[in-house]
Amino acid sequence: MDLTTIYAPIQDELSRLHAQLEQELVAEDPFVSELVRHVLGTRGKMIRPALVCLAAQAGGGAGEARLWLAEAVELIHIASLIHDDIIDQSEVRRGVATVNVQWGNQIAVLLGDYLFAKAFDLLSRIRHPDVAPTLAAATVKMSQAEIMQIKYGQEPHDDESVYFQIIAGKTAHLFSAACRAGGLVAGNPAAAERLGTFGLQWGMAFQITDDALDLTSREDTLGKPIYSDVQSGTITLPVIRALREATPDDRARLTSLLAGPAGDGRMEEVRGLLHRYRAIDYALDVAGRYSRQAGEALSFLPPSPAKDSLLALTEFVVVRSH
Amino acid sequence: MDLTTIYAPIQDELSRLHAQLEQELVAEDPFVSELVRHVLGTRGKMIRPALVCLAAQAGGGAGEARLWLAEAVELIHIASLIHDDIIDQSEVRRGVATVNVQWGNQIAVLLGDYLFAKAFDLLSRIRHPDVAPTLAAATVKMSQAEIMQIKYGQEPHDDESVYFQIIAGKTAHLFSAACRAGGLVAGNPAAAERLGTFGLQWGMAFQITDDALDLTSREDTLGKPIYSDVQSGTITLPVIRALREATPDDRARLTSLLAGPAGDGRMEEVRGLLHRYRAIDYALDVAGRYSRQAGEALSFLPPSPAKDSLLALTEFVVVRSH
Repeated sequence: MDLTTIYAPIQDELSRLHAQLEQELVAEDPFVSELVRHVLGTRGKMIRPALVCLAAQAGGGAGEARLWLAEAVELIHIASLIHDDIIDQSEVRRGVATVNVQWGNQIAVLLGDYLFAKAFDLLSRIRHPDVAPTLAAATVKMSQAEIMQIKYGQEPHDDESVYFQIIAGKTAHLFSAACRAGGLVAGNPAAAERLGTFGLQWGMAFQITDDALDLTSREDTLGKPIYSDVQSGTITLPVIRALREATPDDRARLTSLLAGPAGDGRMEEVRGLLHRYRAIDYALDVAGRYSRQAGEALSFLPPSPAKDSLLALTEFVVVRSH
Repeated sequence: MDLTTIYAPIQDELSRLHAQLEQELVAEDPFVSELVRHVLGTRGKMIRPALVCLAAQAGGGAGEARLWLAEAVELIHIASLIHDDIIDQSEVRRGVATVNVQWGNQIAVLLGDYLFAKAFDLLSRIRHPDVAPTLAAATVKMSQAEIMQIKYGQEPHDDESVYFQIIAGKTAHLFSAACRAGGLVAGNPAAAERLGTFGLQWGMAFQITDDALDLTSREDTLGKPIYSDVQSGTITLPVIRALREATPDDRARLTSLLAGPAGDGRMEEVRGLLHRYRAIDYALDVAGRYSRQAGEALSFLPPSPAKDSLLALTEFVVVRSH
């Protein structure tokens, strides 16, 4: 099932959300508006707001607040991407120049701050007492995990638990919060807890798959440079697996390749070593396990088109083009 | 009156706040905790949390939420300083190495995000429906104004209104929100509006004075390098005044000095030109006007030690050592 089909139950909501988001972000100042247009013009798959809306529908409600919530979650995500691009010195995102490349790091720092603040501005208008705390806690975890990734995730290591802790914080907890809060604004706190579990497991599957795609995709299908994790020194699950399984010689070779200067030949050799130890297949298997657990978390929900879409997303997350 | 005397009515609250803030910020991860200790260890005058506590007391109440609020306001301020130091490439803040110098820009971006998120995490726990929106709106204005400062505030110009708009956004609105929210958690919405006006005017006086001090202080009394605005190209009120009043020759000379490379001789010549047009005195006069308006906004409040302290702050803000 493709995303258009999966998004069918929330198609109207997502259109309203697009329009509202542009309206919310119109700034008094023309330059700030220009920056915002650049960022919104390169919108991605909108998976986080879609999850908010699907979770709210699957939870049986459709409180008006879900659109503010969906917008806020997307803004938190966009803000964190803008700051990530500074950190990784990325030049291209979703096929266009990054903010740091087009306007410099100073503007990129501040634009990220502006969008974070806008997100909390939206969240602060939602009257449900647990929604803003849920998202705020996830955002705290996100920035903490990004700090940990820089501190611990960039030296070659074979400790899966460090990797899982980092990706849970930097990715999965925001998905979890989005789904949980979707259930909360729907007025279904029991469903909210299970939807939160769904989001956490789904987010793990999403990030593990994303990291694997970085090692298997072609640049033109991914819309950003491939091997960017290896280039930036970020150690992901396939690499951890290969380091754990490799002979001492291969392990030493892989470690030295990871630390070495960039170059096409180097990437091909890394790829060969990962292939030798079936390291990418291993990572995709782990992602598949998380995605099945995500599906199981939904078993208690009554049938609905939104539930079908969430279940379809558990397939979608692990079979994206690669 | 010195700050210790001014803070006397809220001395206990500020001590509790210190302890609570450290407790709130203990992170699971030892490295994140180390970063937080560095930042809290170089705590400044705590003027923003003091204003929250004084405003709440002067508003006649002392809701428990005021400590969370005061902590959140201080964290927003600290986070913005950390990001400002990246932008200005500052090396010293409050007498110690900045986060960007000690750990690099990547960590500084993320630590700022972490503290912003922590601030909204605290705010989201405050049940008063207008408190979090008040602070979120001020934070949106703050980052927008910082973007405008980079875009419009770094070419020599003689437009005071641009300067006032930028400092209102980057400084005064957060003071205003702190005071207004202090009144709100005290359960006194009428006082909250007037306290918000006080904070806005006081914040203008504070920033104008701060900008003047940058041109008149000695490095060892200010705790950070002097002339940093001129060095970083930020145009402040004394410079705007001098550009407006100067003869065409002096105006051209000042413009070229501001654009030129740093150097002690250059700074002395800038200082001489500002002196010739009494530009710093002019700025301090404007600050004095704002500070008097701040005091007038409090006239409706019944007498209290907290009110006396707020009034004393209107004196303090314009007579800081210079």
